Amino acid sequence: MIIVLKPNVPKEQITLFKTTLEENYNLTVNTWIGVESTVLGLIGDTTSIDEDWISAQDVVESVKRVQEPYKKANRKFHPDNTVIEFPSGVKIGDGSLCIMAGPCSVENEEQINYVAQRVKKAGAAFLRGGAFKPRTSPYSFQGLRAEGLDLLKGARKATGLPIVTEIMRVSHIDMFESVDIIQVGARNMQNFELLKELGKIDKPILLKRGLANTIEEWIMSAEYIMAGGNNKVILCERGIRTYETATRNTLDLSAVPVIKKLSHLPVIVDPSHATGKASLVEPMALAAVAAGADGLMIEVHNDPKHALSDGAQSLTPDKFDEVARKVFALKKAYDGIMSDE
Amino acid sequence: MIIVLKPNVPKEQITLFKTTLEENYNLTVNTWIGVESTVLGLIGDTTSIDEDWISAQDVVESVKRVQEPYKKANRKFHPDNTVIEFPSGVKIGDGSLCIMAGPCSVENEEQINYVAQRVKKAGAAFLRGGAFKPRTSPYSFQGLRAEGLDLLKGARKATGLPIVTEIMRVSHIDMFESVDIIQVGARNMQNFELLKELGKIDKPILLKRGLANTIEEWIMSAEYIMAGGNNKVILCERGIRTYETATRNTLDLSAVPVIKKLSHLPVIVDPSHATGKASLVEPMALAAVAAGADGLMIEVHNDPKHALSDGAQSLTPDKFDEVARKVFALKKAYDGIMSDE
Amino acid sequence: MIIVLKPNVPKEQITLFKTTLEENYNLTVNTWIGVESTVLGLIGDTTSIDEDWISAQDVVESVKRVQEPYKKANRKFHPDNTVIEFPSGVKIGDGSLCIMAGPCSVENEEQINYVAQRVKKAGAAFLRGGAFKPRTSPYSFQGLRAEGLDLLKGARKATGLPIVTEIMRVSHIDMFESVDIIQVGARNMQNFELLKELGKIDKPILLKRGLANTIEEWIMSAEYIMAGGNNKVILCERGIRTYETATRNTLDLSAVPVIKKLSHLPVIVDPSHATGKASLVEPMALAAVAAGADGLMIEVHNDPKHALSDGAQSLTPDKFDEVARKVFALKKAYDGIMSDE
Amino acid sequence: MIIVLKPNVPKEQITLFKTTLEENYNLTVNTWIGVESTVLGLIGDTTSIDEDWISAQDVVESVKRVQEPYKKANRKFHPDNTVIEFPSGVKIGDGSLCIMAGPCSVENEEQINYVAQRVKKAGAAFLRGGAFKPRTSPYSFQGLRAEGLDLLKGARKATGLPIVTEIMRVSHIDMFESVDIIQVGARNMQNFELLKELGKIDKPILLKRGLANTIEEWIMSAEYIMAGGNNKVILCERGIRTYETATRNTLDLSAVPVIKKLSHLPVIVDPSHATGKASLVEPMALAAVAAGADGLMIEVHNDPKHALSDGAQSLTPDKFDEVARKVFALKKAYDGIMSDE
Repeated sequence: MIIVLKPNVPKEQITLFKTTLEENYNLTVNTWIGVESTVLGLIGDTTSIDEDWISAQDVVESVKRVQEPYKKANRKFHPDNTVIEFPSGVKIGDGSLCIMAGPCSVENEEQINYVAQRVKKAGAAFLRGGAFKPRTSPYSFQGLRAEGLDLLKGARKATGLPIVTEIMRVSHIDMFESVDIIQVGARNMQNFELLKELGKIDKPILLKRGLANTIEEWIMSAEYIMAGGNNKVILCERGIRTYETATRNTLDLSAVPVIKKLSHLPVIVDPSHATGKASLVEPMALAAVAAGADGLMIEVHNDPKHALSDGAQSLTPDKFDEVARKVFALKKAYDGIMSDE
Repeated sequence: MIIVLKPNVPKEQITLFKTTLEENYNLTVNTWIGVESTVLGLIGDTTSIDEDWISAQDVVESVKRVQEPYKKANRKFHPDNTVIEFPSGVKIGDGSLCIMAGPCSVENEEQINYVAQRVKKAGAAFLRGGAFKPRTSPYSFQGLRAEGLDLLKGARKATGLPIVTEIMRVSHIDMFESVDIIQVGARNMQNFELLKELGKIDKPILLKRGLANTIEEWIMSAEYIMAGGNNKVILCERGIRTYETATRNTLDLSAVPVIKKLSHLPVIVDPSHATGKASLVEPMALAAVAAGADGLMIEVHNDPKHALSDGAQSLTPDKFDEVARKVFALKKAYDGIMSDE
Repeated sequence: MIIVLKPNVPKEQITLFKTTLEENYNLTVNTWIGVESTVLGLIGDTTSIDEDWISAQDVVESVKRVQEPYKKANRKFHPDNTVIEFPSGVKIGDGSLCIMAGPCSVENEEQINYVAQRVKKAGAAFLRGGAFKPRTSPYSFQGLRAEGLDLLKGARKATGLPIVTEIMRVSHIDMFESVDIIQVGARNMQNFELLKELGKIDKPILLKRGLANTIEEWIMSAEYIMAGGNNKVILCERGIRTYETATRNTLDLSAVPVIKKLSHLPVIVDPSHATGKASLVEPMALAAVAAGADGLMIEVHNDPKHALSDGAQSLTPDKFDEVARKVFALKKAYDGIMSDE
Repeated sequence: MIIVLKPNVPKEQITLFKTTLEENYNLTVNTWIGVESTVLGLIGDTTSIDEDWISAQDVVESVKRVQEPYKKANRKFHPDNTVIEFPSGVKIGDGSLCIMAGPCSVENEEQINYVAQRVKKAGAAFLRGGAFKPRTSPYSFQGLRAEGLDLLKGARKATGLPIVTEIMRVSHIDMFESVDIIQVGARNMQNFELLKELGKIDKPILLKRGLANTIEEWIMSAEYIMAGGNNKVILCERGIRTYETATRNTLDLSAVPVIKKLSHLPVIVDPSHATGKASLVEPMALAAVAAGADGLMIEVHNDPKHALSDGAQSLTPDKFDEVARKVFALKKAYDGIMSDE
């Protein structure tokens, strides 16, 4: 950590500040005195230093981290990819492509079972479906809640597909005991109390990126879970909020290679929520594969008897068949091209 | 609600869609057939209609709300300002200016009591202080938690100042029973499970705007609390995330008059968190008053024996004396100017 | 265009407004009277209607376009892809992948000729290089200007590669006469006087997206050029400004399929400027291909005798060889997968 | 400037890099060797160093400026406020409040003369009006151009009010010879060729902030003008682009005190363009005064015989009378409060 001090700080104040740093954080502090200003260099583990606290000091002009503020999620200290294995034999993070697919909301048994069958057949490794739904309006459908969870388990039993679904509250953790991957939604990415509790259990966590969170903040939220002892974190890029209105959010695909460099955690991409438009799911799913993603989360919905079923961002099972086919074909070509190096 | 249909939708599909709308939502649907496209106009209460659901339909090109999606927080249905009264006699929303001041974190008894005394003397009506702290890093100080809450209550007892502090978890609601105003922080603005539970209690809620949330989403979160029966919601603008890095966030002061027009709820401004710099607190506090805010939330910290105490965004008690004096003087002038109309 | 009127507007005012619209714009205006508000539907060509002017009227609550505000760039009126042919036989927009490569700035003859040779050998169809450089600081290198242009022409002569370079000023248009593609940089995307003049010449224009411009504004800038008679516009996505700091800008790859749907113009992607990091160029170039881009613009720089030559976002010629090989291989696989439909 | 080098860079490369820096820029380079990385500190004038060039070097991990990259606009080297005096006796930057008011577009002689009279009477010191209009659509009204300029001069003659109007093209500079303040619009803030030419004339320049430009970039654009010899630059905050849609842009009032600290240039605020809504002009104008602005630019439009004249963001002359009265009253109170210190 490099700390630039304000110009003309009296020498005693600098000494006092250095002593405080050394005593509080068990660090060595080097000093470099320039014409315009003095700079301190902190040597040792600065992870636990509060950058805000530093910049809050009277003598400090600005602070710059040289090391990342995360340890457990940091590739520097864990060069190998984290690979998460499931009883089904599926692995996430091992270089393969894992597709999670299913409806935004679980609606009824028939629907979820049918979709589960179809996405399984098309190659999905996980069934996704919302039981507890975070909705902007209190008047919107809030999900089937506990009943939805039961329906998901039923669909798992019927098809053998493991399930991934979103948790919204600490007190529900017990209820999610048998869920295969617990999803933390974008709005809860910095619900630190929830993250802490999820750090205490032994269960893969799918951590979606917050709507307006930086990649560093996102990895710090993974660090919250890992700091509690749970290392099974899967990151999921799902678009960030920008001024552009042509898409619901702006899918930040460069987050994939950026995270691959900074962290050893697997990262998947959700083109459905990011774009909000079914017609954009295929091109963005293909692009995610070419950017190096470990997986995709895709909304698939079906209610063929009802004329109103084709969601703005949901694919029909037939369209999903096509997208999955293309995505796996591109992945195969991609792997061949990359292994030629 | 105006629904623009896609070009060339067969007549039967339009009829089916209209019938579905009328049956599901108890609405009247008017049709306007143009050369390029057909438009439906929905008459009746559209608050509970899910805009996403509408735009997800095959036949729909786009949707436009004419009415706001909130009712209880809507000034149209509640023209008078909501005024929240406290046992101390203080009112928020009645045209007066209410200042909440205190440290970011409660650190110890001496600190909080001293700051409480000082801010009270300067004219603050509430003591603010963090007991449970949402921190980006799991390695940062997480607040004194329950102990911090006790210290705040102690400072209240010593000074008579009512207290406002942040809640981070549903299971803490009981613990916050005697807190005067419960704060929901920016990161929890869309923690809907928490909002729902806070809707069930009879306690003023200070709802901070999320870092990347629109004004409409913010009011919808207030609506969550109000839908549960708790109408005592105070909105707090605290800066939004933009590309600008000269300030921590960008204080959106236009949110104050915008909300005053859309809603009857009181709105206050937090210039400390918005700017992240002590030197910007005074000008932005004055600007907030001139923009019509009902109050201010200002960080004041003091630890005179320790050289490192002056926070980047915290004012010293002496500086706060000066800011409070100016702010009240400007408010007085402002009231005079506005009543001259 | 759908115009929602304010509640309780007197009937005479509505009639007056309708008459004004019909007379000024040669339109038919349909009226739909609801309980809460009245809605007008405009039938006819609304392209020339100024949305700002409409929403500026006293009686208007809000406006919604049903048609896009552009005509010449609109795929609806020009379903086939625009294909731009060059004397070299190269085509842009015909489904092939066109790579433009070269240094950020032309520095000297040796450099530009060497880079030109190398990128040609690797498969680039155009040599890019900056002669006039838009720089944030007046104290930064502003490019070799006219001399740089001559060096580019020299490199074209030596290698046969057509050239693309940026124009910054109307009075330079004559000087750019023999440039093969004239680039309009992100900062000049809404330099309307420049766009108008470029509309009068018969020369392909590469129009980069502005740092904070919507896709619609971007297409409107293309429409400026096309309205003058020059239909040879190539759009180039190069990242937008967001709060994220891990990359210089956020590459918005979803812009590629969005534009493909809205417009018939070719669209290419510049991963170098978007990410600002050489290590991200390869994954984002591959992702761009999989998203359906018509081409790529990639920075390649070389000065082997000088130790300091490897730019933050520039590839070495050797690395470019590798990226180009992968990119063309992925394109081939992609074409195979897409033609299987 | 602090340069953090990558870990494990060989000593010779560090030495080579240091030598290059010292030779190219006439600087002294201090070295600080830490456990994890080496840091270089540059002593001397680093204004002309290209940060991009530094971070482009192989050995560099990251760069941090300690000094601002601007000199002429920097308050450090010019502690006193720049005060711009006009023949009329009006001063901008001397602590007084200067209002510029008038229509968005000059439409005809009657209109501009009437508005000029009215705003003068209400206390405006300048008449603003657009002759050349930057419009998103080529099909929108582009302004009366040269004729508009003549009408403005006519209104000046009739009322004595000096005029401010926007330039869009280098070749128009001669035509703007007798304009009192030349405005550079938001879209041209980084039209560096235009800025350079405006640096060569002796005329006050009103430099609007670009829609997505940081405060530092904005000051750098002022530096472009000043580097050419023209020190008469007035900055104008007019809102930045964010995700919020309730206002056209987000007015960043904290830019006022931030600039006052960084630069000696005067800064004014345009609440009309920032908010896009007439009802928000008054509160934001008052807030701008309380934030310390040197002036306001307000849109006033009048065409009383025509029912459609009240612009979404334009005030009527009557409403402007009221706003000006309140604004001057608040300014008086503000000055009293601030001089009490």
